[in-house]
Amino acid sequence: MAVISMLSDFGHLYPAQMKAVILRINPAAVLVDISHQIPAQDIRAGAFALMISAPHFPEGTVHLAVVDPGVGTSRRALVVQAGAHFFVGPDNGLLIPAACRAGQYFTVREITNPDLTLEPSSTFHGRDIFAPVAAHLSLEMDVKEVGDEIKDFVEMDFGAPEVIDGNVRGQVVYVDSFGNAITNIPATIMFEWFEYGDVLELCGVNMPFVKTYGSVQKSMPLLVVGSHGFLEISVHSGSAAKLLGLVVGSRVDIVSLQSLHL
Amino acid sequence: MAVISMLSDFGHLYPAQMKAVILRINPAAVLVDISHQIPAQDIRAGAFALMISAPHFPEGTVHLAVVDPGVGTSRRALVVQAGAHFFVGPDNGLLIPAACRAGQYFTVREITNPDLTLEPSSTFHGRDIFAPVAAHLSLEMDVKEVGDEIKDFVEMDFGAPEVIDGNVRGQVVYVDSFGNAITNIPATIMFEWFEYGDVLELCGVNMPFVKTYGSVQKSMPLLVVGSHGFLEISVHSGSAAKLLGLVVGSRVDIVSLQSLHL
Amino acid sequence: MAVISMLSDFGHLYPAQMKAVILRINPAAVLVDISHQIPAQDIRAGAFALMISAPHFPEGTVHLAVVDPGVGTSRRALVVQAGAHFFVGPDNGLLIPAACRAGQYFTVREITNPDLTLEPSSTFHGRDIFAPVAAHLSLEMDVKEVGDEIKDFVEMDFGAPEVIDGNVRGQVVYVDSFGNAITNIPATIMFEWFEYGDVLELCGVNMPFVKTYGSVQKSMPLLVVGSHGFLEISVHSGSAAKLLGLVVGSRVDIVSLQSLHL
Repeated sequence: MAVISMLSDFGHLYPAQMKAVILRINPAAVLVDISHQIPAQDIRAGAFALMISAPHFPEGTVHLAVVDPGVGTSRRALVVQAGAHFFVGPDNGLLIPAACRAGQYFTVREITNPDLTLEPSSTFHGRDIFAPVAAHLSLEMDVKEVGDEIKDFVEMDFGAPEVIDGNVRGQVVYVDSFGNAITNIPATIMFEWFEYGDVLELCGVNMPFVKTYGSVQKSMPLLVVGSHGFLEISVHSGSAAKLLGLVVGSRVDIVSLQSLHL
Repeated sequence: MAVISMLSDFGHLYPAQMKAVILRINPAAVLVDISHQIPAQDIRAGAFALMISAPHFPEGTVHLAVVDPGVGTSRRALVVQAGAHFFVGPDNGLLIPAACRAGQYFTVREITNPDLTLEPSSTFHGRDIFAPVAAHLSLEMDVKEVGDEIKDFVEMDFGAPEVIDGNVRGQVVYVDSFGNAITNIPATIMFEWFEYGDVLELCGVNMPFVKTYGSVQKSMPLLVVGSHGFLEISVHSGSAAKLLGLVVGSRVDIVSLQSLHL
Repeated sequence: MAVISMLSDFGHLYPAQMKAVILRINPAAVLVDISHQIPAQDIRAGAFALMISAPHFPEGTVHLAVVDPGVGTSRRALVVQAGAHFFVGPDNGLLIPAACRAGQYFTVREITNPDLTLEPSSTFHGRDIFAPVAAHLSLEMDVKEVGDEIKDFVEMDFGAPEVIDGNVRGQVVYVDSFGNAITNIPATIMFEWFEYGDVLELCGVNMPFVKTYGSVQKSMPLLVVGSHGFLEISVHSGSAAKLLGLVVGSRVDIVSLQSLHL
């Protein structure tokens, strides 16, 4: 088996050309779309989506990720090896959070071997560079063949939440298609400071910290640790992003009403 | 071959985690998306989409369907065996119309065997419970291993149309991406009461009952028996839902102008 | 290997029935979606999308394309053999530009062999006629079995751009999901008349002819030869279609400011 996952902001037409190129090189590749509807040029949203999806794939999976406003400029092309996973994409931070989660140590190589790529267009490296390299890696090519290791790749993280007087401050890093606003606040911090059943205040609205969406009435807001391990602001059978006006980057202050009332 | 079909309201990001989990258990599974764009939490729309799609799949197909507002609550997880098909999903009616269509007799089991599932999160049973069970079934595991048969599962149907004085009353059960409004009125009733070429009245608009979309001029409304076997209200190269203001649940009265004019 | 590519305007629900039918006939078929989000009934947009995608697929690929406002009428069903590729779809021009690009000579056959198709509904030939024929072709059936060659198929092209006094006139033939407006002006004409760095005028706006999107500041318009080999009107990290009001069919006049200022 050779699984290649794919993530991009290409929408509905261009991913097929990447798949076609992969199948020419590795006809047995198993192609799984993570998403091609990452908001256009939103590297942070793509990095978050890749980070929460990649860990579920089988060992040996090659993750091909392209959100690439710098295509055709001097930004470099990378392969990252982390744990039992490979990540292929542009040097703009997109791959880094997923790689950090996949392995404490990871190596980053610049793709420089022209034998592995097509004659590149200046506008579609997903098809001309990243797809063929991913296909070759899925054939168990030695990763050293892509090029030398580099250390000065572009970093990315989602910022650390702060805890001030028992209140927690973070930010929205992703809004999913249900309108759930996913934050950079990990489960560990939530469970350190709060417990299920606490009523917390956020954006001027009181809402309970609960186990799942159905713990509250329909249309009511709630706080939940999502399946990705981060705090999610949700509305049961509704959109928290709409109700509370949350977008990627929104600051989130969680105020514990109990401690306020001490 | 082991085909697993997938249907959900998850949009573009979360289905990949279900696929990843399946491929870890059955690397040879052939995954086919029915749709992941069922309107959020709309169990009836999901049930209709599953019912019209499942019959076309090969014998032995496992249908993994998740529209699940009750995730993490006490609602049960099911496997339904109907004819040569398996259906895996929540106990909220979602699977029942498809099962009824697949076999006159079907058996419903509650998933209780913890060896078949991942440690469940409280918000994503699609990934943690339903996907691994579907993967094990695609490996031809005996269905009895999932758990005991139950009889008190949640039922669902789309209501029976009524015929009053030769006029037919039904309701819209699905609006497709062309804007065709699909009703619960089966072909049998249409052909019993009407014939091709009849001009019928619906929502105050006269339109012909015809064989196909192109039987009328562009932008004109029409009534047609769709490829699913139900009456569809359509506009040639346009959207009937928009033109006539039809949504899921809209009541539909079909008045035969000929009988009116007797 | 037997790759079947798929393109349609069916949106998210109906393609699965075509895939199910294919897998019943050829369980080993590798299915790749080009797009199912071609604008409804827009044959030209579908033809363009197919033309730019098909050449990247492996030899022997069967391309199943259905944008079919005439379904159920007397329009014919076709198989086109061009170079090492097969194209299956309706006789409305959809397949022709891709076939022209795949081979200087191509043969067009009408599908008339009823043994290869399902009992056709009058509204979903994608499922009942085109999908099973594509599946049989992917099993290396002799193409002659589908039916006789015809010569009077419906033609389609995207029109030829004109050059008047060193200014180039073409039209928009596709708007992609980034809002890039793709024209019918091929790279050859652009490089004959202009060179990288030229500032050109289009829709009353001055913009440079550059190698890639990142050659200009964010939110600035630009002209670029896209990965498909045609002139693309773009905005770096933005939508040219929105900024300039471009839609499919918009006339595009490219005025060379340098020659104006001679």
